[in-house]
Amino acid sequence: MPPPAAHPGLPTLADSVRLAEDGVHILDRRVFPFEHRWVHARTVEEVAAAVEDMVTQSSGPYFAVLWGMVLAAREAAGQGPDTARERLRVAGDRLIATRPTNDQPRKAVEWVMASVDASGDDVVAAALAGAQAGDAEYRRRSREMGRAGAALLPERGRILTHCWGDLYLVGLVEAALEAGKQLSFVCTETRPYLQGARLTAETLAEMGVDTTLVTDAMPASLMRAGEIDALVTASDRVTMDGHVINKVGTLQLAVAAHTFGVPFHALCHAPDPRSATGADVPIEFRDGDEVLHTLGRRSASERVRGLYPAFDITDPRFVTTVVTDRGAFGPERVHEYWDEERGTAR
Amino acid sequence: MPPPAAHPGLPTLADSVRLAEDGVHILDRRVFPFEHRWVHARTVEEVAAAVEDMVTQSSGPYFAVLWGMVLAAREAAGQGPDTARERLRVAGDRLIATRPTNDQPRKAVEWVMASVDASGDDVVAAALAGAQAGDAEYRRRSREMGRAGAALLPERGRILTHCWGDLYLVGLVEAALEAGKQLSFVCTETRPYLQGARLTAETLAEMGVDTTLVTDAMPASLMRAGEIDALVTASDRVTMDGHVINKVGTLQLAVAAHTFGVPFHALCHAPDPRSATGADVPIEFRDGDEVLHTLGRRSASERVRGLYPAFDITDPRFVTTVVTDRGAFGPERVHEYWDEERGTAR
Repeated sequence: MPPPAAHPGLPTLADSVRLAEDGVHILDRRVFPFEHRWVHARTVEEVAAAVEDMVTQSSGPYFAVLWGMVLAAREAAGQGPDTARERLRVAGDRLIATRPTNDQPRKAVEWVMASVDASGDDVVAAALAGAQAGDAEYRRRSREMGRAGAALLPERGRILTHCWGDLYLVGLVEAALEAGKQLSFVCTETRPYLQGARLTAETLAEMGVDTTLVTDAMPASLMRAGEIDALVTASDRVTMDGHVINKVGTLQLAVAAHTFGVPFHALCHAPDPRSATGADVPIEFRDGDEVLHTLGRRSASERVRGLYPAFDITDPRFVTTVVTDRGAFGPERVHEYWDEERGTAR
Repeated sequence: MPPPAAHPGLPTLADSVRLAEDGVHILDRRVFPFEHRWVHARTVEEVAAAVEDMVTQSSGPYFAVLWGMVLAAREAAGQGPDTARERLRVAGDRLIATRPTNDQPRKAVEWVMASVDASGDDVVAAALAGAQAGDAEYRRRSREMGRAGAALLPERGRILTHCWGDLYLVGLVEAALEAGKQLSFVCTETRPYLQGARLTAETLAEMGVDTTLVTDAMPASLMRAGEIDALVTASDRVTMDGHVINKVGTLQLAVAAHTFGVPFHALCHAPDPRSATGADVPIEFRDGDEVLHTLGRRSASERVRGLYPAFDITDPRFVTTVVTDRGAFGPERVHEYWDEERGTAR
């Protein structure tokens, strides 16, 4: 049994990685919404394996790493502060290595390490405080970003999204609902894991938003028919020159949107100052066999080989807006997010 | 058990609708390649139902309708030529109505009716002769078109295709192999029925061609990386002004190909003189529930609604070449196919 909800009232997936005395409990997104099965990770290694095995994804690994670092602190407790900090660093490296393209695990580790480095001898308390601050800040930034994104959407309209934007999307939809906007959503199913069908569509339904599911191949035909008012996706990373790295398929939709005059808004707390351009971001290739299966059943014969680039890179020319927690930027100006006069950046 | 192969040496699917004394035997493409199950249609109505239920698709309905019309002639035998012809017309209308976008059933009916109308009293013999001529001519034209298409492909290269081009694709690959071209293929899996994963990839493997499977969302990322040399698909219809109607998703790939400088060659025996432009072609919407299932398993919860436009319309500006059995045309010139000096059309 998982611990009780820390954030009652949110959709299921927005509160699906929880810390308890006996470890980290992670809702298994591979079987959601058909089953609500929680994976119990008792150690840092079990948290890392759960992330690698896609038990959780999108924003999930961020929270899993926050709480995983608390487990690391517990494991290191009583070893003296210096040894404990060294063990935390090793644990952080292990957790960061789980997903090479998603940058969130690194940020989660930084929250905990900064708190531990600034603290005295109680490493466990410091790690917990850092993780809790990282949790709260991620949620705050998602809400800010959601408000900035919702402001770009029409009062009434149909929004296309791809894969599962997690707290980014939840923040956007909450803000749009608060603003009284009447939006319906079209979700791509997002093969091979069907995150759109299982996670996005379900969460939008939980939030009371009218939702239609299409296959990954259909959006251009809807755009050509004038049936889509905006494309909105989360992003795993945005580079300083406005390249958007997100779930594979985002590029294809962005190209279609650009062609048919549909704006594409990419959600991202902030551009990554460590990534100058798209070529700087490693693209994770997952096991091609995953493409050859759907819901656990083989979809092609043994003669066929699969290829699975898990992310793609969308060039700035196909991006209308990068929406951050400091407001919306044209892609060519997103580096201004980091300018000193932060509040006035646009 | 189906009757023996009429065309030994061809890939399984290129000889998968067969006439016998006891009816029409249709290989069930919904379970291929995992099972080789044949559906036995004893009557015209059973043939029509099999086509509607997607037992066969792409070129399959053409052959099913040819042989279905022979069943109609057998059913009408002994009723006098005029009554028999009238019954054949009713049967033809029923078979044509099975798939509103695919134009092949109408052509198959015409082959049989022309033969019957030109014949004497033996309606069954005339229907069989017409159907056999329609079968042979379809195969001849596919080979001619395949040769014209293969001539457009590089000596070595990687070709992207979508859905299942059936005899059009088989003709192209046969011609390319005969010409000594070294091609590999990337197939989209083509949700919801996974024709690419199950039919295209399997048939290319049967033909000894190197084949990689991707999801429907991935091709643009491969094109951006310079890994695709040409996009080639069949088409359900090409209009006189060069619009290509094909399986939904073709538009999205054609837009990406256009954006990244990859040529798109659409295979089509001939443009349809009854279709002046894309708006003249009805687009079949199938049951949205089909999008909510994959290999028979539900992919989203009961809260979610699906949408399934089965075909889309690709504008001429995204089409490089329409490849016909009279050679290759730019889309804006495809109407010249029907000019009187046919042999010189280009």
